Amino acid sequence: MSELFKSLESASSGTRRPLTEILDAIRWNEGGLIPAIAQQHDTGEVLMMAWMNRASLQETLDTGRVCYWSRSRGKLWRKGESSGQEQHLKQARLDCDGDTLLLSVDQTGPACHTGRRSCFYVALDAEQATVDSEPMIPPSELYSDKR
Amino acid sequence: MSELFKSLESASSGTRRPLTEILDAIRWNEGGLIPAIAQQHDTGEVLMMAWMNRASLQETLDTGRVCYWSRSRGKLWRKGESSGQEQHLKQARLDCDGDTLLLSVDQTGPACHTGRRSCFYVALDAEQATVDSEPMIPPSELYSDKR
Repeated sequence: MSELFKSLESASSGTRRPLTEILDAIRWNEGGLIPAIAQQHDTGEVLMMAWMNRASLQETLDTGRVCYWSRSRGKLWRKGESSGQEQHLKQARLDCDGDTLLLSVDQTGPACHTGRRSCFYVALDAEQATVDSEPMIPPSELYSDKR
Repeated sequence: MSELFKSLESASSGTRRPLTEILDAIRWNEGGLIPAIAQQHDTGEVLMMAWMNRASLQETLDTGRVCYWSRSRGKLWRKGESSGQEQHLKQARLDCDGDTLLLSVDQTGPACHTGRRSCFYVALDAEQATVDSEPMIPPSELYSDKR
């Protein structure tokens, strides 16, 4: 863990550091990315987990519109740019060792590309997995050009 | 994405698959791991993010006590084994592309090694980072042999 995050462990509430110091200290993985969890600010639902690089995190903090790094497309991904279902940032937080982000967001409609509200719809137990939610919107409609 | 998770995208609620098929289809990373988000079941607080391998996920589902894979120690990590602050599983879920877990848990006391309830205590804005919570228990007490 970086010295910076180590020093914040025992820091009292209200302690501040410049953002650039924090961005330099984040434990970006070998691809320059960090996982970001999106949680609906008012209901507490965990909607999805995606990845951010430094540019997408900086853009998200600057604009208030959540921007991820798409690993499959290899480019910045402004959530909702193809589906219309945007995420607006309420608050961003880093964890104790500076390697995970938690985003409190306002997500209108489905966060998941399947049209479901949340990406976490496969419930597991010791014997089986069960799909436990239905799409709010059919994916064909979500990604239609007619939108 | 695997054929299995692709097929579940359009599956209706209640569709089931055997756990072993799911474990075979999970997108374990190059280290054989998957990120697992722990959320307090009743308050919705996101407490931490850690990693699981197949053995730790299977153990967690079998026993109901959350077991991660410690990347720093290179071994199974039964949450609370040194701090006494255990996590009990209420429900586990996988996301749409089978590469992230969401665990609904019952966490007694702090989830964070700093003694804070949640690991996400560094709030970010466009200019700075601010520590915004205090430990519930001093870490010296959390890891004391006298416990």
